[in-house]
Amino acid sequence: MLTLYFAPGTCALASLIALEESGLSFDTKKVNTRENEQRSEAYLKINPKGRVPALATDRGVLTESTAILAYIAQMAPAAKLAPLDDPFEFARLQAFNGYISSTVHVNHAHRPRGSRWADDEAALESMKAKVPQTMGESFELIEAAMFRGPWVMGDNYTVADPYLFVMTSWLPSDGVDPTRFPRVSEHYARMLERPAVQRALAREKA
Amino acid sequence: MLTLYFAPGTCALASLIALEESGLSFDTKKVNTRENEQRSEAYLKINPKGRVPALATDRGVLTESTAILAYIAQMAPAAKLAPLDDPFEFARLQAFNGYISSTVHVNHAHRPRGSRWADDEAALESMKAKVPQTMGESFELIEAAMFRGPWVMGDNYTVADPYLFVMTSWLPSDGVDPTRFPRVSEHYARMLERPAVQRALAREKA
Ligand SMILES: N[C@@H](CCC(=O)N[C@@H](CS)C(=O)NCC(=O)O)C(=O)O
Ligand SMILES: N[C@@H](CCC(=O)N[C@@H](CS)C(=O)NCC(=O)O)C(=O)O
Repeated sequence: MLTLYFAPGTCALASLIALEESGLSFDTKKVNTRENEQRSEAYLKINPKGRVPALATDRGVLTESTAILAYIAQMAPAAKLAPLDDPFEFARLQAFNGYISSTVHVNHAHRPRGSRWADDEAALESMKAKVPQTMGESFELIEAAMFRGPWVMGDNYTVADPYLFVMTSWLPSDGVDPTRFPRVSEHYARMLERPAVQRALAREKA
Repeated sequence: MLTLYFAPGTCALASLIALEESGLSFDTKKVNTRENEQRSEAYLKINPKGRVPALATDRGVLTESTAILAYIAQMAPAAKLAPLDDPFEFARLQAFNGYISSTVHVNHAHRPRGSRWADDEAALESMKAKVPQTMGESFELIEAAMFRGPWVMGDNYTVADPYLFVMTSWLPSDGVDPTRFPRVSEHYARMLERPAVQRALAREKA
């Protein structure tokens, strides 16, 4: 059995959507990040990093969105969520998701989570002030050089799509106007039409 | 043919070591990051992100250490650089490398590259001041909960090992005493004995 530990409004939504797309049977557990449940003793036993997502499996717990997304794709080959038989295309997919986790998500985190990297109020304000620029630049690159269309990797929907979707959803609160990126904005609308995305959003609200 | 674009002293050393371990035939090109060659027009055509590593292949250029490392392992199955036949263990490896790229490397980057996330001098100083703490905490977690030994993933050497090796090499300049982490320190010494690591270090100096 698979159990996804997630919290609404976080990057864990990408893994939740991927599970909904996969056809795998799974369970979810909400972690109340507003009350810092991710740092509770009980949750640190599941993920000592104190973050979501975490995916509990029969063999142990997996963390990191990039690893969880690829794992879901590999466990559900029939759902064709990754180019599993082509190491080069698989690496391109992993590179896209790697860019999101190491750069785009990190850019965003400097607004709500600047205290990871500095302690004084002035520095946190200074980090927040730059988020519209860093997120804007990341999305310029995605729009111009990385996104193939209609899906991230081209004709085939993959686990890169829910991950981009979550980042796009953060743009307005990060002070970036999504309409600057027409292809990414169309992608966002296209995602909202998918039943798996609608089911995942409903689970976030439940 | 594979060509690795790298710069001495950077995270690209992990990919260079993996290539040396793989037995694949490859070429290298040095990017002079001291003179910001990574932002030259010529290099941005190879990697529009303006970063190293980048791996040029017959089918196109791959970026992101996590993706490049997994790709090298997949292209050289005989070298057994990843648990390719076990999606769960493969995901654990990707989770380790994902933690390095999204968290450990990012913690480090707040010392030399804080200007990615803030503009004023005081904020950059404030970020630098916290690096010993964030790098120290990341390595506490690696030492206690993630590193299996004698290699990162246990008995088998994988592409997680060169990636950890590079991060460990940064600890002294990040203001962290590596002897706080005995298992990680032994791992570092063990890595230095490998001919592939020695060849990669020689290429950095060449
Ligand atoms: N690199 C990790 C990052 C996970 C992460 O930072 N998750 C955030 C939510 S988007 C979190 O749990 N934050 C809670 C906290 O920082 O306390 C991944 O991609 O899974
Ligand atoms: N997420 C990327 C990060 C690559 C990266 O930031 N590389 C650094 C060297 S360690 C770089 O090229 N820095 C040059 C710069 O920022 O201009 C990866 O893991 O490959």
